[in-house]
Amino acid sequence: MAKTRQLKLGAILHGVGGGTSMWRHPDAQPDASVNFELYKQWVQKAEEGKLDLVFIADGLYINEKSIPHFLNRFEPITILSALASVSRNIGLVGTLSTSYSEPFTVARQFGSLDMISGGRAGWNVVTSPLEGSALNYSKKEHPEHDQRYRIATEYLEVTRGLWDSWEDDAFVRNKETGQFFDPEKMHTLNHHGEFFSVQGPLNIARSKQGQPVIFQAGASEVGKNYASKQADAVFTGHETLEEAQTFYQDVKSRAASFGRNPDDVLIFPGIGPIIGSTPEEAERKYQEVAGLVTIENALNYLGRFFEHHDFSQYPLDEPFPDVGDLGKNSFQSGTDKMKKDAKERGLTLRQVALQSATPRTSFIGTPEQVADRVQEWFDAGAADGFILASAVPSGLEDFVEYVVPILQERGIFRTEYESDTLRGNLGLPIPENRYTQAKAAVRA
Amino acid sequence: MAKTRQLKLGAILHGVGGGTSMWRHPDAQPDASVNFELYKQWVQKAEEGKLDLVFIADGLYINEKSIPHFLNRFEPITILSALASVSRNIGLVGTLSTSYSEPFTVARQFGSLDMISGGRAGWNVVTSPLEGSALNYSKKEHPEHDQRYRIATEYLEVTRGLWDSWEDDAFVRNKETGQFFDPEKMHTLNHHGEFFSVQGPLNIARSKQGQPVIFQAGASEVGKNYASKQADAVFTGHETLEEAQTFYQDVKSRAASFGRNPDDVLIFPGIGPIIGSTPEEAERKYQEVAGLVTIENALNYLGRFFEHHDFSQYPLDEPFPDVGDLGKNSFQSGTDKMKKDAKERGLTLRQVALQSATPRTSFIGTPEQVADRVQEWFDAGAADGFILASAVPSGLEDFVEYVVPILQERGIFRTEYESDTLRGNLGLPIPENRYTQAKAAVRA
Repeated sequence: MAKTRQLKLGAILHGVGGGTSMWRHPDAQPDASVNFELYKQWVQKAEEGKLDLVFIADGLYINEKSIPHFLNRFEPITILSALASVSRNIGLVGTLSTSYSEPFTVARQFGSLDMISGGRAGWNVVTSPLEGSALNYSKKEHPEHDQRYRIATEYLEVTRGLWDSWEDDAFVRNKETGQFFDPEKMHTLNHHGEFFSVQGPLNIARSKQGQPVIFQAGASEVGKNYASKQADAVFTGHETLEEAQTFYQDVKSRAASFGRNPDDVLIFPGIGPIIGSTPEEAERKYQEVAGLVTIENALNYLGRFFEHHDFSQYPLDEPFPDVGDLGKNSFQSGTDKMKKDAKERGLTLRQVALQSATPRTSFIGTPEQVADRVQEWFDAGAADGFILASAVPSGLEDFVEYVVPILQERGIFRTEYESDTLRGNLGLPIPENRYTQAKAAVRA
Repeated sequence: MAKTRQLKLGAILHGVGGGTSMWRHPDAQPDASVNFELYKQWVQKAEEGKLDLVFIADGLYINEKSIPHFLNRFEPITILSALASVSRNIGLVGTLSTSYSEPFTVARQFGSLDMISGGRAGWNVVTSPLEGSALNYSKKEHPEHDQRYRIATEYLEVTRGLWDSWEDDAFVRNKETGQFFDPEKMHTLNHHGEFFSVQGPLNIARSKQGQPVIFQAGASEVGKNYASKQADAVFTGHETLEEAQTFYQDVKSRAASFGRNPDDVLIFPGIGPIIGSTPEEAERKYQEVAGLVTIENALNYLGRFFEHHDFSQYPLDEPFPDVGDLGKNSFQSGTDKMKKDAKERGLTLRQVALQSATPRTSFIGTPEQVADRVQEWFDAGAADGFILASAVPSGLEDFVEYVVPILQERGIFRTEYESDTLRGNLGLPIPENRYTQAKAAVRA
C-alpha cells in the first residue's frame, strides 16, 4: 500500500512579527528580532514538532516608516548558520536577493551553510521588491520588474553551475599517494552571459543533499514562470481556498509544460493560524492583536507595498484612492490585488490599511478546526504544505503543541524525521551533478 | 599596582592546514576543511585555553594548483556564525574582501554576527591579493594594489557609518505608548563618495561591543598606513624578532602620527609553534611535516604568490629566477621579501619553494622553550599577542595543553575571561556612536 501523501510544514521566524504592532502584545518579547536565545528556542520548538524547515525573510531597505521587525533584525545567512549548530534535522531556508549580490558569494554562502548543516540549506530567491534598495547599493536605479527576473534567471543558472564545480567523489584524499583530489572531477564553469561572467570553480563542494533547496515567492506572471521552471518550492499567499487551488494548479501545469514532474515543485501557502481552546477564545486572541494596530501604523505599512507612498494625505473614510501605477515595480501582484479588491468591494482607505496590517485569517479556531482547515486545503489541491507565520506571539508553540499531534494522528504528518537533509524530508530528488550526468550519458 | 601587561592570543582555524601537505600527516583528518564537528571541537579547545579569538582566513579564487584547504573550505561568515552558538566568550574573526563585495551587505553580516554572538565579531579587512578573483566576479580586471586600498578606505568609512545607524538607546520598545524607537536616534548615512553611494540606515543595531573589531593584514607601505590609521589589530608575519620589532615600532608610530593611542592598535604576528616533550621530539615533528611536501606541491604553492606563475619551467637547482614585477599586484610585500631574500642569500628555486611551503619556525621546542620565545617577543616590543597557526595537526591542542598554563603561571596570560565581548578581552575601547558623540559635543 502506498503511503498516504504527507503534509510539509515550515515556520517563518520573524522576531517581533511581520506586522506593525505584535511587539506590543503582553506576551511578546519586544527585542525578539535581535534576541538569539529566542531564535534558538524557536528552532528547537519547530524541530520538536518535526517541522520541515524554518524560514528567514529579508529586505534591503528601511526608513522611519518601516515596521519594527524590519528596522533591526538578524541577517539571514548569519542567523541560519548560527541555528545550524543548535539543530539536527530541520531545514534552514533564507531569503537573499539576486538584484544586489554576486552569484559567487551567494553560491559559497549557501553552499557553506549546506555543508555546515549536513544538507539542510534552502535559498528563497527574491529579486528585491523595494525600490529603495538601489540607494543602499550604489546603484543609479532599481532594475524594473521583468529585468529583475531576467537577472535572477541567469543568476540561478550561474549559482547552480558553481554548486556542481566538484563531482561528489572528487575528493580522493589518499594520504599514501598524496592525491587530494581528482582533477577530472573538478569543473570550471566559464559562464559568460548577459549580466554575469563567472569562471569558477567554486571553493566548496556539494553537501549530501546535492544542492540547497530553491524556494521562490513571485506571484506575477513572470514570477510564476520563474518558480515553475526553476524552483523546488514556492512560498505563496492566498486568502481563499479557491484562489489557492487556482494558483496551485497554475504552477503545477506550468511546471509540467517546462518538462518537469509537478511533484518536484512544492506549493507552500503562508498562513497565520490563531488557536484557542474554544472558537471564542481564538476570536478574542485575534481581536487582541488587531486592537494593537493604530491607523498611523497601518497607513505606513500599506505605503511600503506602494513604493513607500504617503497615504496619510488622503481622507481615511473615502474610497481607496487611485494611485495609478504605483506598486507595479515593487510588489506587483500584491498591489494589483489590493487595488482590484478595493474597487470591487468598495473599500475605504481605512479598511484597506487595517486589513493589510492585520489580515483576518480563516485558519482560526480550536486545534481541531485549524487542523481541519489545513487538511481541507491539503486534500483539495491547494497546498503541499504550509509556512506558518506567528499571528500571535505564541503562534508557533500553539501549533506544535496542539495542531501537530492531530495532523500526526490523522496520518498526514510525520512523527519522526525521515531524513537529516531538507531534500530528504521534503521528498525532493537530489539533483545529480551535471558533469557526472554528462559523463554517464556519453558512456551510455 | 598596575596589572602586568597581558598577552593576547588567537588561533587560525584552517582545516587541513595552510600548507600543501599537512593533510597527509598520520594524525590529520583529511576532510578537516569541511568538517564542522572538528571546527566545533577546535573553537571549544581554544575557549578552554582562554584564547581571545579564532580566525578564519579566506580567498576568492582557486585553480587546480591551489593548496588543498583552499579548494574546499567553509566560507568565513557562515562558519563563524555557526561557531557563535557553540561558544561563549571567544572572539570570532573572519576575512572578507572589500574589492568584491558591497558595504551594506558586509556591514549587515558582521553586524548580525556581532549581535548573535553578543559582541564577539571581528572583521579582517583584505583587498584580495589574487588577480583571478576578478574572473569570478564579472569584473574586467582586478583593481591595482593602491586602488584596492583607496576602495578599502572608503569602504570601511561606509561600513563604520552604517554600524552607527542606531544610537545605543534608540530602541525604546514602550508597549504602553506604542513607541518602538526614537526617530531622533535613527541616522541616515547618505554617503556619496568616489566608489560608493550608500544611503542607510542599516537594518541592525550595534552590539554591546559597539562595532566589530577591525583586523588588517597589509604589510606594504599603503597597507601599513591603512592598518595604522583604521585598524584595531594587525595580523602580520615575520621570521625574526628584529623584523617583528621594526614592524611593531613602525605601525605604532604611524598610529600615533594619525593621532591615535598606539595601544589601540594591537600587533599580532602569526606563528606556527611546534611543541615536543624534548627539543629533539619537536624537531622530529617538524621534519615529519616537512617530509610530506613534494617539490611539485612546493612550486605550485610558490606560484600562487606570484599571480599563479608557473615555476616548473625553471631549473630547480639554479638561482631563483628573475620574474620581474610578478607578484607586485597581488602579495606585494611578501613577494618583494622573497625576491630580496633569494638574491641576498643566493637561494635556488628549490630552496625558496620548499621554504615557502614549510617555513622553519623559531617557535619550536619544549613547552618552556616555546613559552620563552613567546614571552621574549612580547617583552621585546615585537608583539601584543600572537595568532597561532597549526604547523602540526595537534598544534592548537598542544599549545592550549602545555604552553598556556606556563604563560598563565608567569602572569602574562589570563586564567579567566575578563569579558564576554572581543573588545573587552582585547582591552580595546568601545567606539562611541558618532551621532551620540556629536550631540554631546554640541551640548558641551
